[in-house]
Amino acid sequence: MTTVTVLAGGVGAARFLEGLVRVHPPELVTVIGNTADDLVLHGLHVSPDLDTVTYTLAGQINQAAGWGLADETWSAMTTLERYGGHAWFRLGDRDLGTHLYRTARLGEGADLATITGDIAKAWDIGVRLLPVTNDRLRTMVTVADEGEIGFQEYFVERRHDVAVEAVRFDGADLAAPAPGVLDALADASVVVIAPSNPIVSIGPILAVPGIREALGRRRESAIAISPIVAGAAIRGPADRLLRDLGHEPSVVGVARLYAPLAATLVIDQADQALVDDVEAEGIDCVVAPTIMSDSNAAAALARVVLGVADATSGRG
Amino acid sequence: MTTVTVLAGGVGAARFLEGLVRVHPPELVTVIGNTADDLVLHGLHVSPDLDTVTYTLAGQINQAAGWGLADETWSAMTTLERYGGHAWFRLGDRDLGTHLYRTARLGEGADLATITGDIAKAWDIGVRLLPVTNDRLRTMVTVADEGEIGFQEYFVERRHDVAVEAVRFDGADLAAPAPGVLDALADASVVVIAPSNPIVSIGPILAVPGIREALGRRRESAIAISPIVAGAAIRGPADRLLRDLGHEPSVVGVARLYAPLAATLVIDQADQALVDDVEAEGIDCVVAPTIMSDSNAAAALARVVLGVADATSGRG
Repeated sequence: MTTVTVLAGGVGAARFLEGLVRVHPPELVTVIGNTADDLVLHGLHVSPDLDTVTYTLAGQINQAAGWGLADETWSAMTTLERYGGHAWFRLGDRDLGTHLYRTARLGEGADLATITGDIAKAWDIGVRLLPVTNDRLRTMVTVADEGEIGFQEYFVERRHDVAVEAVRFDGADLAAPAPGVLDALADASVVVIAPSNPIVSIGPILAVPGIREALGRRRESAIAISPIVAGAAIRGPADRLLRDLGHEPSVVGVARLYAPLAATLVIDQADQALVDDVEAEGIDCVVAPTIMSDSNAAAALARVVLGVADATSGRG
Repeated sequence: MTTVTVLAGGVGAARFLEGLVRVHPPELVTVIGNTADDLVLHGLHVSPDLDTVTYTLAGQINQAAGWGLADETWSAMTTLERYGGHAWFRLGDRDLGTHLYRTARLGEGADLATITGDIAKAWDIGVRLLPVTNDRLRTMVTVADEGEIGFQEYFVERRHDVAVEAVRFDGADLAAPAPGVLDALADASVVVIAPSNPIVSIGPILAVPGIREALGRRRESAIAISPIVAGAAIRGPADRLLRDLGHEPSVVGVARLYAPLAATLVIDQADQALVDDVEAEGIDCVVAPTIMSDSNAAAALARVVLGVADATSGRG
């Protein structure tokens, strides 16, 4: 009964999880999700990464976009645009029901973890999905010539096509891990750092006090999957962000970030030549196809990770 | 250039206004709208009566329902119901865009009157629509065996099918008329009290300090239209509410309520026999078809009102 805890951002993590639950019982999987790209928009609390994981595992994700619900309509946005409202962050009609529900429950005093669990249950996703924290945590991005802006203003409104000078996680110092998070890190047979953005998806999870330490304590059976392949992110701005912030945008740069937290880094075959450089950072290197072009590929990658887990579990 | 200011609730007022703008230039019409049935739902600020007026004058009202937008879809509600969320107050997908916009603008510090004007402008409704107040005003209903509940909980959730012991307008003592409201009452050639619920639609407008006095000062050229025909409300709970609260559910009861505020009451032909009883309350009585079965009928009623206005304007 290999229990797996996965640190997850959005699309990349969701695809990996979709593969994982094809080859491993979902009830043995706990997901710790990033909430630092949450935003309050038009009064609604939106949790993009949590929803991407839920919708993907529900088989309801908009495959083309990678976010939002399939078979979506956009009537609310059409009305909003009539008024000249802020429509840069697109909320589909089906999707809006999730934000209405979450906002109503928060207003009634429920915490985000409870609500997230109830949403996940309604979609019958099988895995346990925990927000990293119930507290306010917000990725703030300092952009050249502009100053500090919110994550979604950077990511969606500016299409992450700007130079970044700094990233910080507002609220992290006051945030506590959500109930169950530290236990899920301590008790799982294996911890997986999903192929998510190390800076703005995994970074904020690690910034919540206690998480980095909990992960470090069980490093030997923790496995990271590189989101960087051949020097580029499969999706999103991870490569540029790494470079802008002084990291090497390569599997070696990723190895340097994760070596204190994971004993193994899974890299793509395209980076075969960098195995020695990765291991020189003090992390074991496993080479496998990591590009999840479909759910078969994602399942194959999950099998590789579970294989490493079998080999390393019990190492402490 | 007869300028007309109309005190308006929801459906009944909107239908009258639809007729009025067919026979009178919209730019000469100011509407003072009820905001006491506003509610915050799932974090969104919903203004049902203002929206009913706007959507109706935009030719976009859902004719069958009397509220909401035509050609509506309900995807957000379907998602919300999946979670077991509060779906008793139905928010259509198109309609949601209005609530998103209003909530966002309020969050940015705009006042309700400004936002209402911008929404009205986007729909090009022609008339000037003013909320009675920018301040919080909420109709609270004391229901037998239950205690006090919000207006929409009474009206929508319980389908106004309960005995009412009391109605009050929370916030009224601290509310101020929105900018332009008192001038619109003082300066218009004629003031019309639309055929709306006297208790819960016109009542809260009159409860805002200064409005009842402003109306009383120009009583001679103010005209009310009875929402009660042959002892029953055309729509909604006006008759039952009048009875429950100790008023007579008839044009005579309406005359008693409005006599201090309007010199003329327009009643339906069905109540022809009650003309003397109405006038015994100290209000002139005009008999006309008041049932607005279509917009031709509404226009005919508006013509009657404008005719009375011509006869009474300048009476002071």
